[in-house]
Amino acid sequence: MSVTAAKGFTAAGIAAGIKESGQPDLALVVNQGPRLAAAGVFTANRVKAAPVLWSQQVLKGGQVSAVVLNSGGANACTGPEGFQDTHATAEKAAAILNEKEGSLGHSAAEIAIASTGLIGVRLPMDKLLPGIEKAATELSAHGGEKAAIAIKTTDTVHKTAVVQGDGWTVGGMAKGAGMLAPGLATMLVVLTTDADVDATGLDTALRAATRTTFDRVDSDGCMSTNDTVLLLASGAAGVTPGQDAFTEAVRTVCDDLARQLIGDAEGASKDIRIEVINAATEDDAVEVGRSIARNNLLKCALHGEDPNWGRVLSAIGTTSAAFDPDRLNVAINDVWVCRNGSVGDDRDLVDMRYREVRITADLSAGSETATIWANDLTADYVHENSAYSS
Amino acid sequence: MSVTAAKGFTAAGIAAGIKESGQPDLALVVNQGPRLAAAGVFTANRVKAAPVLWSQQVLKGGQVSAVVLNSGGANACTGPEGFQDTHATAEKAAAILNEKEGSLGHSAAEIAIASTGLIGVRLPMDKLLPGIEKAATELSAHGGEKAAIAIKTTDTVHKTAVVQGDGWTVGGMAKGAGMLAPGLATMLVVLTTDADVDATGLDTALRAATRTTFDRVDSDGCMSTNDTVLLLASGAAGVTPGQDAFTEAVRTVCDDLARQLIGDAEGASKDIRIEVINAATEDDAVEVGRSIARNNLLKCALHGEDPNWGRVLSAIGTTSAAFDPDRLNVAINDVWVCRNGSVGDDRDLVDMRYREVRITADLSAGSETATIWANDLTADYVHENSAYSS
Repeated sequence: MSVTAAKGFTAAGIAAGIKESGQPDLALVVNQGPRLAAAGVFTANRVKAAPVLWSQQVLKGGQVSAVVLNSGGANACTGPEGFQDTHATAEKAAAILNEKEGSLGHSAAEIAIASTGLIGVRLPMDKLLPGIEKAATELSAHGGEKAAIAIKTTDTVHKTAVVQGDGWTVGGMAKGAGMLAPGLATMLVVLTTDADVDATGLDTALRAATRTTFDRVDSDGCMSTNDTVLLLASGAAGVTPGQDAFTEAVRTVCDDLARQLIGDAEGASKDIRIEVINAATEDDAVEVGRSIARNNLLKCALHGEDPNWGRVLSAIGTTSAAFDPDRLNVAINDVWVCRNGSVGDDRDLVDMRYREVRITADLSAGSETATIWANDLTADYVHENSAYSS
Repeated sequence: MSVTAAKGFTAAGIAAGIKESGQPDLALVVNQGPRLAAAGVFTANRVKAAPVLWSQQVLKGGQVSAVVLNSGGANACTGPEGFQDTHATAEKAAAILNEKEGSLGHSAAEIAIASTGLIGVRLPMDKLLPGIEKAATELSAHGGEKAAIAIKTTDTVHKTAVVQGDGWTVGGMAKGAGMLAPGLATMLVVLTTDADVDATGLDTALRAATRTTFDRVDSDGCMSTNDTVLLLASGAAGVTPGQDAFTEAVRTVCDDLARQLIGDAEGASKDIRIEVINAATEDDAVEVGRSIARNNLLKCALHGEDPNWGRVLSAIGTTSAAFDPDRLNVAINDVWVCRNGSVGDDRDLVDMRYREVRITADLSAGSETATIWANDLTADYVHENSAYSS
């Protein structure tokens, strides 16, 4: 279902030969209208890939007619030449789509680009540009699945999600398995809707949705140079939903995809749900959650099914959040192993056999809450990120 | 030579039975005077172990007559009972030392305590207190080596260092192999000198020395609840060195011990020297160095002997330091693999076979510099921190 679940979109996913393995590596998503509204959020990393710099400019216009996505190369840290490659990709896509449709409706300035793969290597344009031509011939209203497959890198499964509104639909696809600690977005995500929503409404919905979903995923503490989340509206359903209902649908799709990212994180054997409660502010709750999420010693302990709550306390202690060390409480899988900053219930009561681990950190400092999702740290993660370049 | 290299100190290290393995786990260091001056720096973690809270109070007086150190338990997150245990340890040590020396010279208020081991477990006081009695009978001017051995936890070797001044000596011991990213100190370190220096002079030297040594070690990004560095002066050499010469000697001993900590870090196969150059401020240089040091993907790549400079750039991009992404340069083992934020010299020229890896990050934003030491991330680290509680 993916990006073609909503009416007014076609998509394709093909193997252009960018990946040496011959696996699918190029996706094309086209908005057939009548509306071409779009919004996007991008990585907060100050070192941004060429396609991020390009797409940020495109999104300023609030219109996107097509998105070209490739795996097999991030086109990050590739200098002015890399930016030229992105520009050439948009020009090529516009020319091919206009030729195919016998129109001049596509302009490079309305074509977003997203790339993922190894940083610091130029893309093989001699393969990418012909690939766009091939993808254009395969565009279909049922192509969303293939597009989702073509953007995979170390992902073991492709990720899609769909929510039905009242006469309208929001769907999407995502990729991401490592370098997964987004500051504003995560890896590559394209969402589509046939609801008739303008760029401002899309932007409002997308920022609200990503703030509490992709922004709260922290698999390995490493923020990417390429994170991109796009939301495109075709208006083909002819229905304009209320902003709240629409935002909630977008949030639901984002949440679903974010959970799929965590569930497929590199080498992970545990999905860790960190709920920080009774914080003085939401920012405090997020800071504490992220500090726990990034503690390598805790991530190792949870991999070993050891409810080592001391490592949770030591992680909380490094933050600037409001709390009194003697009033901290911590539960692991609902057993309050730490009460008032000291030894609580018997840690042997904690059942650690399942993939999901729930950590509740009670700061006793207010009433704000945040939930962060993370993964454990495993020898498989080390192997996957040391045995070859990625 | 350790803590007994300087005149005026005795030490002992024994097995008190705190560790179930029966390995040495209790150390005692006694300042015989004539001076009892001392300074200390402690973890910046806001969750502080009972012995840290105790010793911070002791150090306010500027006098330390003895230090009791134990491995086998951190006495952190143990509540008021844990603090009472520390207090009782100091009282017991004072009583035993007074009895042994037939004096009333020792007061609990001048006895520093340091503990290391698992967080969230009470110490076995029925073993620790008799252990102090045993250690007191073994105190010797040659006991420094045994004391250094008794404070080991996951350390594979004990760590000592000595510098000779002009008629005076600075020596010391350290332990630490994991949870090693100090904010003001690292794990347990006791330094001694026979120079005749008052508490203010010691404090000046110690803060200056730790700021550019232990404070710039970041093995695994995890700050401990128990970090303690103490510097004790006996004055037994009867020489008062100039402050600069004394500070430099303390810095040299700290640097030596800090390097030994990195060289013995849990599971590590690489020691990574990260030199940030041409930063606008020293704080910027430290922030960038620490961000690179904590990037799990880079740590994995270096373990795999892959000079993956894109991961260095992505780490720099997450900081708030002053830089222009297009003016960043990165060298790995002196090969400038990234120039002007883009592809530089051939990465195949980088020789990664040796244990030490040198990363140079040139921010092109000023003239300040900082060096951070880190380790790679390995399957052995994961195993060591997941297979059992520590």
